Amino acid sequence: MKQLYIIKIGGNVIDNEPKLEKFLADFAKLEGLKILIHGGGKTATDMAEKLGVKQKMIDGRRVTDAKTLEVATMVYGGLINKKIVSRLQALGCNALGLSGADANILPAVRRSAKEVDFGFVGDLDGTLLQTTALKSFLDNCLTPVIAPLTHDGRGQLLNTNADSIASALAIALAKHYEVILNYCFEKKGVLSDVKKESSVIPKISEDEYTELKTKGKVINGMIPKLDTAFSALKKGVSSVVIGHAEDLLFNVLPEAKGTQLYLNR
Amino acid sequence: MKQLYIIKIGGNVIDNEPKLEKFLADFAKLEGLKILIHGGGKTATDMAEKLGVKQKMIDGRRVTDAKTLEVATMVYGGLINKKIVSRLQALGCNALGLSGADANILPAVRRSAKEVDFGFVGDLDGTLLQTTALKSFLDNCLTPVIAPLTHDGRGQLLNTNADSIASALAIALAKHYEVILNYCFEKKGVLSDVKKESSVIPKISEDEYTELKTKGKVINGMIPKLDTAFSALKKGVSSVVIGHAEDLLFNVLPEAKGTQLYLNR
Repeated sequence: MKQLYIIKIGGNVIDNEPKLEKFLADFAKLEGLKILIHGGGKTATDMAEKLGVKQKMIDGRRVTDAKTLEVATMVYGGLINKKIVSRLQALGCNALGLSGADANILPAVRRSAKEVDFGFVGDLDGTLLQTTALKSFLDNCLTPVIAPLTHDGRGQLLNTNADSIASALAIALAKHYEVILNYCFEKKGVLSDVKKESSVIPKISEDEYTELKTKGKVINGMIPKLDTAFSALKKGVSSVVIGHAEDLLFNVLPEAKGTQLYLNR
Repeated sequence: MKQLYIIKIGGNVIDNEPKLEKFLADFAKLEGLKILIHGGGKTATDMAEKLGVKQKMIDGRRVTDAKTLEVATMVYGGLINKKIVSRLQALGCNALGLSGADANILPAVRRSAKEVDFGFVGDLDGTLLQTTALKSFLDNCLTPVIAPLTHDGRGQLLNTNADSIASALAIALAKHYEVILNYCFEKKGVLSDVKKESSVIPKISEDEYTELKTKGKVINGMIPKLDTAFSALKKGVSSVVIGHAEDLLFNVLPEAKGTQLYLNR
């Protein structure tokens, strides 16, 4: 099986021009088949503010009402996605920007509003994912660059977490490729002491992860990230590394600088 | 050679929800290979106003400064393009939204600022157009939906007229397909009396066009549209029709309701 890199880049890097430039230069250098999935960053929040679109939060999570979805579509699907694509083209990488509606790559289901109504938010159903289009793009030497937007197949775009997209695609594509999944963010990896950048845990097994969670060493946003990461490993993804965006070219290697996750043997 | 429909839809239809719905339903019904190219409409102007981005005009034409280009990227490449794609998906048409930077489909040259500086505006160079990616999308049963944005290959997106994109792509693809080019707008066709909707000229030859221009019967925006249309015919495009968006399914037929253009025999 051919190798396929699936790289997820978070909002903090996207918001920072020099960091984004460095990251894209590294990504362009990565040889072989690859897919980039990008998050949103605060550009969308800034844009919403400029447009007078109030951001409603429930339990610290943003509600995607119709106006907020419009902003997300403009900023994620337009501004950020096309900026990344045009820069990658300049770097010799034949990028193809996509939302989940394009070529129907990410069909999703709108999250139920029964308990909490988060608005136009989509959850991916792995069983619905068709990889035909993405495979044909990769076969044609194109590099998909995916914005965190999905659709319900009935004409409605939906806001979807980029980490979840990366994991779902990695799982679906693991049938055809040896998938190396890499979550790039603003820390060197999973830290044993959140205040100490040098405290990167080089390897974490499933059992160790459970222990870290129990001890409260892994908190907040890191939990869903690690949950989806382990779920990807269990479903056939070859390697999952969580590390700093500036370490991309190291973290795709077998001896990553960041945190390598692995299943219990 | 297989037939390929290249349909250009203007801003007035995009701005009008019921008209857009009707048009997309018709477009989805069109059998065979097809490409949709959409203009901008006034959503971009409205958005620029909301964001306090002042629109500078020279001789009645908009200047695309950096901020205006950002708005165009958001609105054309994000909001409008992804809305059309998700609606077409709901109509059973496997649409793929693209800007000119995606898969490098529309490399362009920034217009010289020597005489007038229109800002980030790109002109297509037909000789640079690569049709490999578009052909592979069509071969894979995808329907490209193209936003009026090109790029300079050095990381810069550029604003480009959608009529020119339609014509340039029609010419480039005429090497591989029998191309039927259809400009859809808010009139029934080229009118002999601009105030009379019923005065559609059913057929116009090149010579007749020259005469109409001399007599001042064809004016303003219609001149560049017809110039690019005749240039497409001369360069191998099989058929060019200019007609109303609501007549799409008639205007792709040999006996179009709109205005059919033809070369002198």
